[in-house]
Amino acid sequence: MKKGFASDNNSGVHPAILKAMSEANHGHVKGYGDDPFTQKAIGAFKEKFGQETEVFFVFNGTGANVLGLSTVTRSFHSIICAETAHIEEDECGAPEKFTGCKLLPVEPVNGKLTPERIQHHLKGFDFEHHSQPRVISISQVTEMGTVYQPEEIRALAGLAHQNNMLLHMDGARIANAAVSLNLEFKTFTKDCGVDVLSFGGTKNGMMMGEAVLFFNPELTTYTKYLRKQSMQLYSKMRFVGAQFLAYFENDLWKETATHANKMAKLLEAHVSKIPEIKITQPVDANGVFAEVPPEIIKTLQQKFFFYMWNEKRSEVRWMTSFDTTEEEIYEFVELIKKLIKKSSN
Amino acid sequence: MKKGFASDNNSGVHPAILKAMSEANHGHVKGYGDDPFTQKAIGAFKEKFGQETEVFFVFNGTGANVLGLSTVTRSFHSIICAETAHIEEDECGAPEKFTGCKLLPVEPVNGKLTPERIQHHLKGFDFEHHSQPRVISISQVTEMGTVYQPEEIRALAGLAHQNNMLLHMDGARIANAAVSLNLEFKTFTKDCGVDVLSFGGTKNGMMMGEAVLFFNPELTTYTKYLRKQSMQLYSKMRFVGAQFLAYFENDLWKETATHANKMAKLLEAHVSKIPEIKITQPVDANGVFAEVPPEIIKTLQQKFFFYMWNEKRSEVRWMTSFDTTEEEIYEFVELIKKLIKKSSN
Amino acid sequence: MKKGFASDNNSGVHPAILKAMSEANHGHVKGYGDDPFTQKAIGAFKEKFGQETEVFFVFNGTGANVLGLSTVTRSFHSIICAETAHIEEDECGAPEKFTGCKLLPVEPVNGKLTPERIQHHLKGFDFEHHSQPRVISISQVTEMGTVYQPEEIRALAGLAHQNNMLLHMDGARIANAAVSLNLEFKTFTKDCGVDVLSFGGTKNGMMMGEAVLFFNPELTTYTKYLRKQSMQLYSKMRFVGAQFLAYFENDLWKETATHANKMAKLLEAHVSKIPEIKITQPVDANGVFAEVPPEIIKTLQQKFFFYMWNEKRSEVRWMTSFDTTEEEIYEFVELIKKLIKKSSN
Amino acid sequence: MKKGFASDNNSGVHPAILKAMSEANHGHVKGYGDDPFTQKAIGAFKEKFGQETEVFFVFNGTGANVLGLSTVTRSFHSIICAETAHIEEDECGAPEKFTGCKLLPVEPVNGKLTPERIQHHLKGFDFEHHSQPRVISISQVTEMGTVYQPEEIRALAGLAHQNNMLLHMDGARIANAAVSLNLEFKTFTKDCGVDVLSFGGTKNGMMMGEAVLFFNPELTTYTKYLRKQSMQLYSKMRFVGAQFLAYFENDLWKETATHANKMAKLLEAHVSKIPEIKITQPVDANGVFAEVPPEIIKTLQQKFFFYMWNEKRSEVRWMTSFDTTEEEIYEFVELIKKLIKKSSN
Repeated sequence: MKKGFASDNNSGVHPAILKAMSEANHGHVKGYGDDPFTQKAIGAFKEKFGQETEVFFVFNGTGANVLGLSTVTRSFHSIICAETAHIEEDECGAPEKFTGCKLLPVEPVNGKLTPERIQHHLKGFDFEHHSQPRVISISQVTEMGTVYQPEEIRALAGLAHQNNMLLHMDGARIANAAVSLNLEFKTFTKDCGVDVLSFGGTKNGMMMGEAVLFFNPELTTYTKYLRKQSMQLYSKMRFVGAQFLAYFENDLWKETATHANKMAKLLEAHVSKIPEIKITQPVDANGVFAEVPPEIIKTLQQKFFFYMWNEKRSEVRWMTSFDTTEEEIYEFVELIKKLIKKSSN
Repeated sequence: MKKGFASDNNSGVHPAILKAMSEANHGHVKGYGDDPFTQKAIGAFKEKFGQETEVFFVFNGTGANVLGLSTVTRSFHSIICAETAHIEEDECGAPEKFTGCKLLPVEPVNGKLTPERIQHHLKGFDFEHHSQPRVISISQVTEMGTVYQPEEIRALAGLAHQNNMLLHMDGARIANAAVSLNLEFKTFTKDCGVDVLSFGGTKNGMMMGEAVLFFNPELTTYTKYLRKQSMQLYSKMRFVGAQFLAYFENDLWKETATHANKMAKLLEAHVSKIPEIKITQPVDANGVFAEVPPEIIKTLQQKFFFYMWNEKRSEVRWMTSFDTTEEEIYEFVELIKKLIKKSSN
Repeated sequence: MKKGFASDNNSGVHPAILKAMSEANHGHVKGYGDDPFTQKAIGAFKEKFGQETEVFFVFNGTGANVLGLSTVTRSFHSIICAETAHIEEDECGAPEKFTGCKLLPVEPVNGKLTPERIQHHLKGFDFEHHSQPRVISISQVTEMGTVYQPEEIRALAGLAHQNNMLLHMDGARIANAAVSLNLEFKTFTKDCGVDVLSFGGTKNGMMMGEAVLFFNPELTTYTKYLRKQSMQLYSKMRFVGAQFLAYFENDLWKETATHANKMAKLLEAHVSKIPEIKITQPVDANGVFAEVPPEIIKTLQQKFFFYMWNEKRSEVRWMTSFDTTEEEIYEFVELIKKLIKKSSN
Repeated sequence: MKKGFASDNNSGVHPAILKAMSEANHGHVKGYGDDPFTQKAIGAFKEKFGQETEVFFVFNGTGANVLGLSTVTRSFHSIICAETAHIEEDECGAPEKFTGCKLLPVEPVNGKLTPERIQHHLKGFDFEHHSQPRVISISQVTEMGTVYQPEEIRALAGLAHQNNMLLHMDGARIANAAVSLNLEFKTFTKDCGVDVLSFGGTKNGMMMGEAVLFFNPELTTYTKYLRKQSMQLYSKMRFVGAQFLAYFENDLWKETATHANKMAKLLEAHVSKIPEIKITQPVDANGVFAEVPPEIIKTLQQKFFFYMWNEKRSEVRWMTSFDTTEEEIYEFVELIKKLIKKSSN
């Protein structure tokens, strides 16, 4: 299939990561994480986030979010998130099913939560009829391709902690955010007050495997049981450990995310010049959201696959990836122009 | 305690109902519903709603809602309701915990859902990443004291059925609605397309016990197991059956609900003349919502207990009950006037 | 219906309890337990069990067991119980559904757990693949009509506590046990190391309502939320409070339980003389288990309803109640003799 | 780490499978299974099991079991399995947590269920107090290393179907069973009446990924939602598809499983000659269970890691793998002999 702009998980695996997996494929190691690859990878996370960080590998992003949330909640809690959040829109109710919690969706501003928008949900504390607010969950990069600034995160963390709540970050695209902000991972997560972090790599060149990070070890007494019970404990875990080691080596993650973000900027630069197209969100990372003439979409999708975002507004989402090429961007933009011209005749 | 306006469940039990319970207290009957009182009460419901109606008694309103919803959902479904709905605000997450479903809250208009406000949630059908919309749930009377007109219910039922969904009605105050509409129960429920009905009596003079009604018997293959598993199967069920028999006899329910509604209208009539007070919702049934000068509230509550509804707007909720008297209304109104006068000096 | 020997919950309500409910039916009180009846009843429990006891009222026995267990478990825990336990056999999976825990059934000795029989389940601690043993749950009176001696309870509690586990007691028939042991409630529960107690009254003359008692208040931080979420929070709770007050007044519970136990002993004394009948369990409380000629059972049940216990062994269960009369016992025994005689001709 | 006998999942990935994964790593394909590798792999399963088979890929064995079971159960059902079953002993309660069902463990005979041992659980049908028996679940190979004969499976399936129940097979080591029986997969699964099959490959040379097979497509209406909600939907699913394609190509699975089984037989042949060691289970596949002098175990484990099975009986489990060599067996046996000799001096 021709590469398209459907999702950064339609790409394959970065060759350096595949190579590391192959090199890990020698002899026997203990299963379920008690192996040198996993242990070294955990060490690499601790180096980046601080030694007291607790690290749990899981299979995928939904697993990471659910394990992170279930670790810090009981069933009578509520979790505040954006209406567009992955945990609200795209996990088929896994958070509710597994945690028993209520999710409280909030209309975001450019994909982001703000203290003001959350305020009305901070009520009913200690009142047994009401699900108890326990977590604010944000996505970094957001589902709208925008990136929270550190002060925005700090404000949300502050609000959470004032109310005896925690801040969870869904970092499925955290590398793209780090590159966009030009900051170390730790600076805009732990240092801003994030308590629980889903750290993703699959959308940025890994094969599978995500990490759940807890910055307060006291939270994690039971996490290992919850991981197993949530079907997220991988027997041959060395193959996740080996990937993360390669991902961090020579800042491979930065190289791939930088490229993906750059491709999105390139795409934005070109399509923003087309008067029939309207960019609808700030392009902070590797996603471009745009309103496009509806009559060209089907044909465009046949050549370069991508998803509709909002049928009513004729808004589409174009994701770039670590392996998107400049040529593909140019070819895509040309096709858009051609189709628009054709349709306006 | 002096009677207040806190809730219609702060009242006791209507004497006729207590008498019926006492009369049911003779000899042995089989437990768990296989007794003549329960069977006759089920018969009384079938007479009102049609013979094919399936009736399940439970302990309370939350139990009724959860049993009704869990009967017609699987864990990957979603349930659309008002932000103010009891299932969203006041059941501490019981629906999520027991059904595993996602609740999708919608900002209501005077406590009511409308097809327009629901529309944006009717998406993602057949898409495995998205919780599948399955139920629209409304409250009749709403939590804002308003009452749906039959055509409003019909429109929501139509929208639900078009989308292969069902309409659930939380009828914790259904008697007050029937009186307000001056319609038979069946006319504005089953005949308008309601599929599942939580039929409450506790707020209108019963001691405990609610009924869950299903108008399509095919839905209820497993309901009896779900009732037991949800801890809602009452051993000495005759004491619920006996209550419902008394409740329906000589339309006792109508007498008590008519009185409660009338008291709310009386209260509305008087307080609406006080310029410092603003009635905020149509008074369709037995609840009056009003913005009240904040400085009088504490003192007022000490004499006649009631709850704040919205601290920020200084909005209170006053509920009348089957045993509220005209004298209490007058005394209450006089106290309000006196306190306002005092505070303005 | 003629009184039978089906279950102690086929009986009605003791007149003194009904009277107390009627007397509580005056004026308004706050809902959900913040009323004088409930508060006094909680006080009565604290007097019996110690001031630090935490007391939560619920609707029924299954609700009590599930609330007690869910308070002290997380989903990755396991609960050890007898194969015959109510939580294993008769709650349609409510414990698993609501707590997420694994139940580990053990073949009991005369309905009782012993340390020896439990031992093989005390394994896998700290091993993430294995549900973590957390609770030993016993029934007092057992489902086989037998009663644990204090030293038997102490041994189980000791074993539990050694393993950082808790002891739960399902006391649906705890009054019958107290009478049988001739001990105060506290002596064979809290004083023997029980941590969580489901205290039932419905089978001994109450209408509905059970209490969950926790002897370590630190366990109950979240119990109020779990009660609401498990649909067990009763709005007009005064009617449970009033019952328990009457139940404890003048030791009414003792009078009713003494009578029921006495009737079982009377029945045992008479049927044990019939050579065709074999009593299969010690008659410690108000249940008689017996193997009965299969050919007489149907006819016998038509006159005095009761349940088969074990079809294969032709074993039946006869429960006596607070309102069973000596005449009924005599009449029943005579009928048995007559039917046996008839069938042997 | 030196290869040991701890588990077949301590091994790595067969080179041919890793090569196939690498070859699948080109360009973009749609995520979540709508790619040619996944579709071809599904086709390969359909060829083996019949075109009407429905195939769902998941991450791991626990995920496969839980998805299979949750597809065919509701929360009020029960699942009968061996006390030694993976779903009972080794999944930290994931089945209970996700399905809400009760698991009914049965003492097996050499790891196997028999109709006789199950019989007493087949009761309470239609009785709302009792979890409804719905599934019999067996493991092939069993957790004790034994293999069900086709007629044994047929007998269990017959019993299940007679009672309107289904037969689930946990085939984490199904390849080893197929080789042991010298039968096609279909012959001892679908053709014997198995309804739901967890088909594993990870323990036989794959990296990750299992398949859940349903032989009646009508069961699977909702499986795709349950897979997503159970966090088992893999974004880059092509890398599971590619593995299964390689696994089936030229019967790679047979080659690897044949070898593993052969190594177990070799190990058995040699240790069975050592008088101090007692083989405790028939060696049907790739596991050897043996009672070993306790004093040699620690030292032996330091050289060749393996797990204790039963501390009390000093019983150990030795698993062989596709990459176990004859030399390793010989070296291991020699060490055992040496240690025994040493300890007896």
